[in-house]
Amino acid sequence: MFNKYDIIVVGAGHAGCEAATSAANLGSKVLLITMNMGTIAQMSCNPAMGGVAKGQILREVDALGGKSGIISDTSTIQFRMLNRSKGPAMWSPRTQNDRMRFAEQWRMMLESTPNLDIWQDMANGLIVKGDRICGVRTSLGVEIEAKAVVLTNGTFLNGVIHIGEKRMGGGRTGEKSATGITENLVELGFESGRMKTGTPPRIDGRSLNYSLMEEQWGDEQTGKFSFTDTQTTLKQRCCWITYTNQEVHETLKEGFEKSPMFTGRIKGLGPRYCPSIEDKINRFAERERHQIFVEPEGEHTVEMYINGFSTSLPEDIQYKAIRLIPGFENVRLYRPGYAIEYDYFPPQQLDLTLETLKIKNLFFAGQINGTTGYEEAAAQGFVAGVNAHQKINDKHELILKRSESYIGVLIDDLVTKGTEEPYRMFTSRAEHRLLLRQDNADERLSPIGHQLGLISDERMQKVTDKINNAEAIIEKTKDIKISADQANSFLEEFGTSALTHGTKLHNLLTRPQIDMDKLRKMSSQFNDYLHQFDNETIEQAEIKIKYESYFEKEYEIVEKMKKMEDKEINPNFDYNSLTSLSKESREKLMKIKPRTLGQASRISGVKPSDITVLMVHMSK
Amino acid sequence: MFNKYDIIVVGAGHAGCEAATSAANLGSKVLLITMNMGTIAQMSCNPAMGGVAKGQILREVDALGGKSGIISDTSTIQFRMLNRSKGPAMWSPRTQNDRMRFAEQWRMMLESTPNLDIWQDMANGLIVKGDRICGVRTSLGVEIEAKAVVLTNGTFLNGVIHIGEKRMGGGRTGEKSATGITENLVELGFESGRMKTGTPPRIDGRSLNYSLMEEQWGDEQTGKFSFTDTQTTLKQRCCWITYTNQEVHETLKEGFEKSPMFTGRIKGLGPRYCPSIEDKINRFAERERHQIFVEPEGEHTVEMYINGFSTSLPEDIQYKAIRLIPGFENVRLYRPGYAIEYDYFPPQQLDLTLETLKIKNLFFAGQINGTTGYEEAAAQGFVAGVNAHQKINDKHELILKRSESYIGVLIDDLVTKGTEEPYRMFTSRAEHRLLLRQDNADERLSPIGHQLGLISDERMQKVTDKINNAEAIIEKTKDIKISADQANSFLEEFGTSALTHGTKLHNLLTRPQIDMDKLRKMSSQFNDYLHQFDNETIEQAEIKIKYESYFEKEYEIVEKMKKMEDKEINPNFDYNSLTSLSKESREKLMKIKPRTLGQASRISGVKPSDITVLMVHMSK
Ligand SMILES: Cc1cc2nc3c(=O)[nH]c(=O)nc-3n(C[C@H](O)[C@H](O)[C@H](O)COP(=O)(O)OP(=O)(O)OC[C@H]3O[C@@H](n4cnc5c(N)ncnc54)[C@H](O)[C@@H]3O)c2cc1C
Ligand SMILES: Cc1cc2nc3c(=O)[nH]c(=O)nc-3n(C[C@H](O)[C@H](O)[C@H](O)COP(=O)(O)OP(=O)(O)OC[C@H]3O[C@@H](n4cnc5c(N)ncnc54)[C@H](O)[C@@H]3O)c2cc1C
Repeated sequence: MFNKYDIIVVGAGHAGCEAATSAANLGSKVLLITMNMGTIAQMSCNPAMGGVAKGQILREVDALGGKSGIISDTSTIQFRMLNRSKGPAMWSPRTQNDRMRFAEQWRMMLESTPNLDIWQDMANGLIVKGDRICGVRTSLGVEIEAKAVVLTNGTFLNGVIHIGEKRMGGGRTGEKSATGITENLVELGFESGRMKTGTPPRIDGRSLNYSLMEEQWGDEQTGKFSFTDTQTTLKQRCCWITYTNQEVHETLKEGFEKSPMFTGRIKGLGPRYCPSIEDKINRFAERERHQIFVEPEGEHTVEMYINGFSTSLPEDIQYKAIRLIPGFENVRLYRPGYAIEYDYFPPQQLDLTLETLKIKNLFFAGQINGTTGYEEAAAQGFVAGVNAHQKINDKHELILKRSESYIGVLIDDLVTKGTEEPYRMFTSRAEHRLLLRQDNADERLSPIGHQLGLISDERMQKVTDKINNAEAIIEKTKDIKISADQANSFLEEFGTSALTHGTKLHNLLTRPQIDMDKLRKMSSQFNDYLHQFDNETIEQAEIKIKYESYFEKEYEIVEKMKKMEDKEINPNFDYNSLTSLSKESREKLMKIKPRTLGQASRISGVKPSDITVLMVHMSK
Repeated sequence: MFNKYDIIVVGAGHAGCEAATSAANLGSKVLLITMNMGTIAQMSCNPAMGGVAKGQILREVDALGGKSGIISDTSTIQFRMLNRSKGPAMWSPRTQNDRMRFAEQWRMMLESTPNLDIWQDMANGLIVKGDRICGVRTSLGVEIEAKAVVLTNGTFLNGVIHIGEKRMGGGRTGEKSATGITENLVELGFESGRMKTGTPPRIDGRSLNYSLMEEQWGDEQTGKFSFTDTQTTLKQRCCWITYTNQEVHETLKEGFEKSPMFTGRIKGLGPRYCPSIEDKINRFAERERHQIFVEPEGEHTVEMYINGFSTSLPEDIQYKAIRLIPGFENVRLYRPGYAIEYDYFPPQQLDLTLETLKIKNLFFAGQINGTTGYEEAAAQGFVAGVNAHQKINDKHELILKRSESYIGVLIDDLVTKGTEEPYRMFTSRAEHRLLLRQDNADERLSPIGHQLGLISDERMQKVTDKINNAEAIIEKTKDIKISADQANSFLEEFGTSALTHGTKLHNLLTRPQIDMDKLRKMSSQFNDYLHQFDNETIEQAEIKIKYESYFEKEYEIVEKMKKMEDKEINPNFDYNSLTSLSKESREKLMKIKPRTLGQASRISGVKPSDITVLMVHMSK
């Protein structure tokens, strides 16, 4: 019934959609198999994209030629650049999205991608010959052949939903769970584990009293994730902030004895950094209140998402407690919050390409690897899709470095260290975060996307232009001199010390009190000069000038570490031959098969002395 | 957790959405419980509304104040008035709809309806005290009280999906089935049965060769269902027509031995008038080909609906056969067709209000009553919602007569005769179809909607204006005289005999060759006069003039039958006391409890002589 495909992607969530489009756009003949075509690219939890570190990831995906940024931009109903008051490495774009539009845009994107077919069905088995994947089996009993397979099953593998003492099978509320795949992989020798995540109740926004909450509007100028010319056409909406209180907490505690987490009915670990409200009360008993964000689910809908109130306590307790939050006195629920437990595969079983070490041409991406979050899923999906294509075409692998992207950090962390609890990205996970900014994702990664063939020449030219133009602006600031007289009246106003003699604009800009806008006011020549450039380019120049010295230092560190980071190890290296390594180290190194000395050094349990042994051996 | 509601509606399909909005708009506090808020108002099968007899029903629902017409109009991607070449009783509006937009519009309609709450959950039990419904139980274990309950479970009750020899539980593909309700009702003494229906494969329109098919565009002037000022903003799309052939049939036959229908694995009867392709081949073996309509699923999507190719044969046979249809040589499937078997409740267990005879304040509407089709479901939902509200407020019932609406025919047929196979409406089911036209649904039913309070004074005024204006136009045609000279040059051109002396316009219009447009050309005075009226009003006048005599005759028949139709029988009448009735008649009458002598006369097995006995008894 089916011809042989190049690549089969299982699951049309955030990871699956990116995997399918990236591979198809590279030219592979792709089949995307998903259980329900009506739920393609569902946002399972909050209708929002980006945020701290995640916003950076999304820009990286876009810079490489992935589609999640574009999809998000066209369905944005609120944009905020978080952490604007901090240094630019912390600036993080975040959007509120129209849940229906988001899914619809992805659907349209898939439909308009050549080489990409869709089949609605549940994959419930893998066809493996020797140590190589050859296709999948489905619940309809069809066998479909492919040269490579990408699994992106999300939270669906043997998913179980918990609300208080009630349990029911499901991959999300109202949806079936997926069976067969885990069992098949375990038979093949894979190790699987259990994780859990949770979601808050959904409510009817008409039942809230907003006058008791604080408004939170988006940025005046709606920004975006994509470096392309995307734009939202949707009406921008307001969010609200309110708080829990002691009464809410006491009420929630009444349900603790029926909590599936506290009673041990849920075995899987949950995301420490996206904790449920009961977790927060339990772990931070001293906190008198927790913040609650009330976020619209779309441009027109009255449905609201209650960010910060994820819970799997019994639904009557949820209801009793939520009504004690200011503004929620008369709230009407659409459905209670719940937790979901699902299978994942500890990601140390993967190569840095996201190919499994055991079965050739089989790739895993997304929540199945123990991560949480749409952005983390999308990034992995993109990388897996690209690598599946590259592998079957004998082309070079896509392995991003920790020093060049959050995506590199993400995958290296997963593969090298594994994760016991749902992994989400933080800026603190990136040692070179100063360099991994949202503003320069295009500069960092578009050349790679271009080389792959996912970024057009035209688009690449734009990136080059931006870089060159920013450089020109920087030169200009070193060029234009301003006299003390001309500057001083402004400088006083801006609260910074006066000049004794004239100076270059560049020098002024390094002062914390001075920014580009102020410089433009001070020098009409400079102001005139800037008219030819767009805001992003000007901002880029500004960031580079103001933080130049920090960036320089960071580049030096990267350079120093390069020797180790780039020192490749033969993946088939027999560590057992190095008897001076500890037994634990040998085992771990054999299991994880690090690609480089740098990766080896990050394996937990591998000691610096082991790395020295390796270094010595390799320099022989 | 819940306050007591006035009315709970179970299921947010076409019946449930109408039931919930009609009851809420009348002022009841309504809770709509549905298994998945993401699938509200899904079109389970073809993305189209209306058609022969069904289009009339939709206009009736709209004229009464229901919402399906409005929803359909705002999501229309093609409109056609079927049967324009026949008499106006056959004119039937039909639309192709954007599946996603249709569902989204209903969702927005529900959200913007005051008094209407939504709860995502599965109702799996009824709370009954004595012979009265008091609420429902759900899969989350909550009990929710209400004064009345409307069940609209569609195809979900113990739904089983069949494809070839494979069976799986489900209410639609990718969705869970609903359990508990049937079992509970059977315990309460209800009789349940099994029915089945089917749907074709969905396909990727990009894989078709349209040059081998015939185009089918919509009407140039896009019409609509609603008498309000609705309008579609969507791009209008083309459909295509192609045909099966002997090769296709022979290939399909290869799968007959694995067909769930022919092997008896499916017990339930399917819709005779929406047969599967295997049914058609089987029953009409002499037919060399069957028509296939290729219909887009939405404004932008490439997904296509293959109308006429519903099937539950093994998916490889489906695939092999469909590729033999001209234009389908390279077709790619999104998913195979399938059949679904589900529980229904023989509708003789209902009163004409759609309340169950056994349990007070419990109403059934939609597919659960053995019907098929969105329009039939919507109409029942509307009536059940209204009657639930009226009942708990001790207000008059809404029972539409067979002589005033298709809805009346539908419900009377169901309740009085029951149905062994999925019931769909046909014009032939209505004895007075000449009067039940799409063009006069507002005239027939808006006064009833107005009296209920679902049609505003303003809207009612418009209906009255239309009636009066049409009357004025008719009078005008009787007023304006045209001379033989003035007329004859035109009459020849129009292919009708010349006048010997002048006549009234009215007389000319009764000629089949003459229509309003032609009359306007013949008389500038008349043309000027008409400028003040809209097209619908003018058309109304035209229809009334041209078919006046037929209508008159039909009204006379209705009048004659009225004596019997309107003769009420006490629902508690003890038929056993009338020993001259046959045993069978007594049993049936006791079971169905007809409201009128007319209804009694339509019960199958009740003989004319039984009616005479009843008449004699009642006139005593
Ligand atoms: C209840 C809940 C709460 C969550 N809470 C948070 C949170 O607080 N913070 C956060 O960052 N993230 C949260 N998430 C996680 C977030 O939704 C995921 O990280 C993200 O969706 C993962 O994307 P994915 O592509 O890996 O999988 P998913 O988005 O889950 O998509 C998986 C897709 O694969 C399909 N599929 C699965 N198995 C099969 C099969 N065998 N055959 C065919 N198709 C299959 C499914 O139908 C689905 O389309 C939550 C998820 C859930 C369900
Ligand atoms: C495969 C298939 C093929 C069909 N083919 C045709 C055809 O060829 N021609 C035709 O005219 N019609 C066809 N139909 C029928 C058409 O879809 C129905 O007539 C119409 O949808 C009935 O509307 P409804 O409101 O009664 O039920 P549905 O549209 O089925 O809606 C039922 C709703 O109730 C919800 N629900 C069910 N049980 C529960 C519960 N216990 N608790 C909470 N919620 C619940 C469901 O989630 C759903 O939202 C087909 C349907 C299917 C599934």
